[in-house]
Amino acid sequence: MYQIFGNSFVRHMSFVWISTRKRLNTRQLCRQTNRVIKSHVSVFAKSSPLMLSLMWWTNKDKPLDENSFMSQTITPFNELIANESDMKSKFELFVMKVQKEVCLELQKVEDKEHLIDTQVDGQNQSVKFKVDRWTRAEGGGGVTCVLEDGQVFEKAGVNISVVYGKLPTPAAQQMRSRGKTLKENADLKFFACGVSSVIHPRNPNVPTLHFNYRYFEVEDVTNNEKHWWFGGGTDMTPYILNENDCIHFHKTLKNSCDKHNKDYYPKFKKWCDDYFFINHRKECRGIGGLFFDDMDYPNQKDSFEFVKSCADSITTCYIPVVNNNVTKGYSYADRQWQLLRRGRYVEFNLIYDRGTKFGLFTPGARYESILMSLPLVAKWQYCHSPEPNSKEDKLIQILKTPRDWV
Amino acid sequence: MYQIFGNSFVRHMSFVWISTRKRLNTRQLCRQTNRVIKSHVSVFAKSSPLMLSLMWWTNKDKPLDENSFMSQTITPFNELIANESDMKSKFELFVMKVQKEVCLELQKVEDKEHLIDTQVDGQNQSVKFKVDRWTRAEGGGGVTCVLEDGQVFEKAGVNISVVYGKLPTPAAQQMRSRGKTLKENADLKFFACGVSSVIHPRNPNVPTLHFNYRYFEVEDVTNNEKHWWFGGGTDMTPYILNENDCIHFHKTLKNSCDKHNKDYYPKFKKWCDDYFFINHRKECRGIGGLFFDDMDYPNQKDSFEFVKSCADSITTCYIPVVNNNVTKGYSYADRQWQLLRRGRYVEFNLIYDRGTKFGLFTPGARYESILMSLPLVAKWQYCHSPEPNSKEDKLIQILKTPRDWV
Repeated sequence: MYQIFGNSFVRHMSFVWISTRKRLNTRQLCRQTNRVIKSHVSVFAKSSPLMLSLMWWTNKDKPLDENSFMSQTITPFNELIANESDMKSKFELFVMKVQKEVCLELQKVEDKEHLIDTQVDGQNQSVKFKVDRWTRAEGGGGVTCVLEDGQVFEKAGVNISVVYGKLPTPAAQQMRSRGKTLKENADLKFFACGVSSVIHPRNPNVPTLHFNYRYFEVEDVTNNEKHWWFGGGTDMTPYILNENDCIHFHKTLKNSCDKHNKDYYPKFKKWCDDYFFINHRKECRGIGGLFFDDMDYPNQKDSFEFVKSCADSITTCYIPVVNNNVTKGYSYADRQWQLLRRGRYVEFNLIYDRGTKFGLFTPGARYESILMSLPLVAKWQYCHSPEPNSKEDKLIQILKTPRDWV
Repeated sequence: MYQIFGNSFVRHMSFVWISTRKRLNTRQLCRQTNRVIKSHVSVFAKSSPLMLSLMWWTNKDKPLDENSFMSQTITPFNELIANESDMKSKFELFVMKVQKEVCLELQKVEDKEHLIDTQVDGQNQSVKFKVDRWTRAEGGGGVTCVLEDGQVFEKAGVNISVVYGKLPTPAAQQMRSRGKTLKENADLKFFACGVSSVIHPRNPNVPTLHFNYRYFEVEDVTNNEKHWWFGGGTDMTPYILNENDCIHFHKTLKNSCDKHNKDYYPKFKKWCDDYFFINHRKECRGIGGLFFDDMDYPNQKDSFEFVKSCADSITTCYIPVVNNNVTKGYSYADRQWQLLRRGRYVEFNLIYDRGTKFGLFTPGARYESILMSLPLVAKWQYCHSPEPNSKEDKLIQILKTPRDWV
């Protein structure tokens, strides 16, 4: 257990401690954190009761406490518990829980592969999630967890954020254009809370995973009105296609949807294919999954239950796909192909993705948390074109004409 | 000489020959071109008079003919010569000439390094520029020259394009917002011609170069008015800073400016620092150079002469910098740092660069020619931060606070 939380927890605690002392920029903060860790790691490592208390939450049925997550919550834990009937509090606790569960499962895979490999190379430390808790001067903050340069995961990031403040006019206009009935000349406040993640494995046989679940509230203070909605989705980007994995992935997502409404899967599957589309290349980013936005139906309780079902399916739709493929061999050409496809991933995220653009153009945004979605390495070759009927060509055909997998 | 033009010319001729037969998409075209080359290369290679005729233009003072360039011109050569007094023709001949000169100089460097290396690895073929001439259904076309995976140049692209047609309304609005007096409800036609290039060397001691020179015309058919202007610039992005190189680079650019107007260099140097700025990171892309737009002063003749002076300085400001550094050794850490900085280059080009965005969102755009600016390989590491006072940190300080180099 200490292997899982040790370094990250120490880093987080140091980070928080420094953050409270004075206002520093990210680089200074990262550097100071490293220094503090170097000097204090032995002290923290010996305080095992503190570490052991983190183990407690592995049983999902036990009640949450402030050590249940990868870091301290953004809103003080006591406040969240006191306002548990408010969706804002519910959702913050929810995203913290999803972050912890996903990180835990990914770390298990990483550690398992590490243990196998240790027998060969004798290393005795696997790569751990780095945990950074950050606050935003304009209101709120986030927790960014990144595992980089692991044996299984080349780069895996799981980020939560809780931000609030005055809704900027362009954002209000954009919401109106999407059908929100926000009144003009009103004092509008927003609250946004979400969990988002991109997981780039090293082996080209293992697909990249992306998921994001979010809750949005706009309060019209002038007219005493409140608007709220959920959004999100899970989608997968393979490099070497394994059709059975795609079927398993989509079936799992469909099951989560069908429990709530039989129309959801076909609707959100199509939305996903339409959204994750690299328009200049006329191809999808991957084999899709689910994508939805503006969900304020049938009611708040049921739509939250739907989001919870989607989030519950993340590890069941993806971890078996990782385990099925992680020990497969691959060639130099396979790796080069994966890097080219990662270049396409970068193109989508930096040119088209609304979340990335919204994030980078928001004042006070923590760009390191937004750009953790980018792969460790990407490649661009001029006019690259796979041989006809090769496995690469077959993948491209599917990306150009999305398939029904279930 | 055949080494320089052989393959590229054969590929180009094959490409044109296929293009005239039927309309194919880029992938089909690339594939067919490769096939034709494989089957016809021996025939073309033996037709040495055809190849030798290309050598003729190395003396700059000799008059141009249709074999003077990397490819056939976009507008038929006879038409260009017949309308030589029109700036549209003048500028198309100019960009074709710049493309040829730059490719020739880069190829010389690549071939020289190859000859040195041949003594070690016994290879007998250096990497050559690939030449693709393409046409645009909506009007015009371009010539894209790319040298990829060379010993000196990891990726070097030099692109010319000549496009025209009806000016889209959003583009007209954008021009009005920049101060152009284009009348509303008028029939507006545009003509745009430019040369643009990004050169990414392999050795981290050698900086990346970018330049772009363009001519724009808007014809108001309804009111019988014509608007025209020039734009462009040259800028450099080092990975390991060599201050003398930066001084040489900026001095050369300043000399080109000073011949025309002593105010140009300080004005366009600042414009360059302001434009090539990665806003979310609050740092410049590189050490700058020149950038200008909307140049319709003092008159068409003189502003074209200024653009010609700038273009003449491309090889003199950059090739000595390549030669000074190309044989320097570098460490694994230097290469990793270069790849991280290449990631920043990708961020600027895909998020902020107006040319890239305009290109990708233009219907019928050839995205392979637009995205040739991206490096072969790029890297993103979460929260990377150089050690204080390291050479990497010193570079970042200069990128955060642009320096006066002359």
